[in-house]
Amino acid sequence: MNPLAAAKPLDEAARAAAQARQAQLTKPPGSLGRLEELATTLAAMQGRALPRIQQPWISIFAADHGVAEEGVSAFPQAVTQQMLANFVGGGAAISVLAREAGAALEVIDVGTLAPSPVAGVIQAQVACCTANFCQQPAMSAAQAHAALDAGAAACARAQAGGADLFIGGEMGIANTTAAAALACALLGLPGAALAGAGTGVDSAGVARKAALIDRALALHGLAAPSDPLQALCAVGGFEIGALAGAYLAAAQAGVPVLVDGFICSAAALLAVRLNPGARDWMLFAHASAESGHAAILRALDAQPLLALDMRLGEASGAAAAIPLLRLACALHAGMATFAEAGVANG
Amino acid sequence: MNPLAAAKPLDEAARAAAQARQAQLTKPPGSLGRLEELATTLAAMQGRALPRIQQPWISIFAADHGVAEEGVSAFPQAVTQQMLANFVGGGAAISVLAREAGAALEVIDVGTLAPSPVAGVIQAQVACCTANFCQQPAMSAAQAHAALDAGAAACARAQAGGADLFIGGEMGIANTTAAAALACALLGLPGAALAGAGTGVDSAGVARKAALIDRALALHGLAAPSDPLQALCAVGGFEIGALAGAYLAAAQAGVPVLVDGFICSAAALLAVRLNPGARDWMLFAHASAESGHAAILRALDAQPLLALDMRLGEASGAAAAIPLLRLACALHAGMATFAEAGVANG
Repeated sequence: MNPLAAAKPLDEAARAAAQARQAQLTKPPGSLGRLEELATTLAAMQGRALPRIQQPWISIFAADHGVAEEGVSAFPQAVTQQMLANFVGGGAAISVLAREAGAALEVIDVGTLAPSPVAGVIQAQVACCTANFCQQPAMSAAQAHAALDAGAAACARAQAGGADLFIGGEMGIANTTAAAALACALLGLPGAALAGAGTGVDSAGVARKAALIDRALALHGLAAPSDPLQALCAVGGFEIGALAGAYLAAAQAGVPVLVDGFICSAAALLAVRLNPGARDWMLFAHASAESGHAAILRALDAQPLLALDMRLGEASGAAAAIPLLRLACALHAGMATFAEAGVANG
Repeated sequence: MNPLAAAKPLDEAARAAAQARQAQLTKPPGSLGRLEELATTLAAMQGRALPRIQQPWISIFAADHGVAEEGVSAFPQAVTQQMLANFVGGGAAISVLAREAGAALEVIDVGTLAPSPVAGVIQAQVACCTANFCQQPAMSAAQAHAALDAGAAACARAQAGGADLFIGGEMGIANTTAAAALACALLGLPGAALAGAGTGVDSAGVARKAALIDRALALHGLAAPSDPLQALCAVGGFEIGALAGAYLAAAQAGVPVLVDGFICSAAALLAVRLNPGARDWMLFAHASAESGHAAILRALDAQPLLALDMRLGEASGAAAAIPLLRLACALHAGMATFAEAGVANG
């Protein structure tokens, strides 16, 4: 893919038509709050005054991380591959949430240590694992491009499947460390600003993650503003690159994106730093309990819809927000106007 | 009804069973955030380790307010009755949201100025309108009890209809002023602390509402802690009394309650001040954009699920939160355990 190709422009005529309709619905102006803005934004993205979410699509990218050998996660690295089978088998949180939403769910191995392919998982390995970025770059430039391409391929499948909303998710033991390091490089922040508890390390573990990130930023000469692709190569992950590629491809194709939590937001930041027009196509689902998420959201000028202290990943926060998008569309299309209902308008 | 009859105790064995199950699901402990707490709280309310929301019930109570003649609302008083027809006709926000949720929706006139019954609206008028509380008490003690009874009757219908979740809503031009005055009386706050924009008055209008509340508190000798029923009589509304009656009846019967926004929270505060055990049966749906809501939520030690800047009333915020309750139940029941999925547990 070409990450620098222009994003599709939003349809401002459709937005204006949706805004005009909102003003006629039987409620005080603005009283449905962010549900009004969601409807008009989706109208601009989908190019129709009455937007709808009929086929949400969820692509989960899984990868392993060399930095896991530094002991930055509360879970063993084998959990990455074990969870691939759980996603496909229907027992993971995202499996349940996708069923409830009627969403298509696909799982893509972009670089795990799984010794053999897991049935039902799309094979798109860039390599079997990134290198430990405390010692060398996590990946080569060619691998970074391959990761972006794997994400773009997922977006193409989503389009072919009729998706009207794209959600990316991730799984990868140690990937909060990689995502935090990448965002630190892009934002010019020290490790302590973005390192968090991940799946559940204690405060000493968080301090160790922060120090490790600072060492890696120095080792790789990453001072803000870092070149986005150089930062991805130095400290990123294959699933993070794939997410960024999917977000860029969605913006280029004109598919609305619902961004999940901490790691997906780091990937969204990478995408926007590569191609600022991608931001227009992003909605943000939730504020994660992962402590560094707020800083990344601020940098993206993003106001998430939910704040439920979730910190699971797997696109779970985004899937939980799908009903709000649908309710926004249903209210917008289904409410009566003042004239239709014979109600006095203020 | 007897507002002082004891609330049903929560089922702590069911809560413990639900908590034990949560600890075995394939995710880091706590990583689903408030969705975990929702599932275990609903388990304690419903008395089963696997709670579910199959039949939500929404009762909208409508009434008119004598204080409207003071010009405290951006909309004319006739809108109360016009909206009754819109609720029943399917064009109001709550009509759309109830359809989307598969919820039963009933509309009860507990005291509007509608000159004749609106088809499809349950008639339970306490009187045709409260008195202007700037001049005299809004209602008599007998009327206050009749309002509570109208709410209890709605809860009884909900139970007979198999409801596993009760949502109250309200409609009444000028009722943010009555709700603010009532909460000021119960919390010992000045009008300026709780008066807000309602359906859309400007800052001068908000200041007028605050001054009017202060005059009414003085006129009726309401100093905190006020007697709850005296405060309802002095400055309340029929729909607010009905909501409190419904919440109390639900707690006594053991039906979980999902509280909507500003006015419903004032009614919830009234219910809890009358009968503290009612609090155990309340979940809080959303933080309203109405400025005084935060203070009422704090007084109830309530953390709402959503914060979408909604300020419509009609139970719209509560209806928008139903999907989150259902997702919490679906995740709790549908996820695999570590043992089932063969995933290493930390």
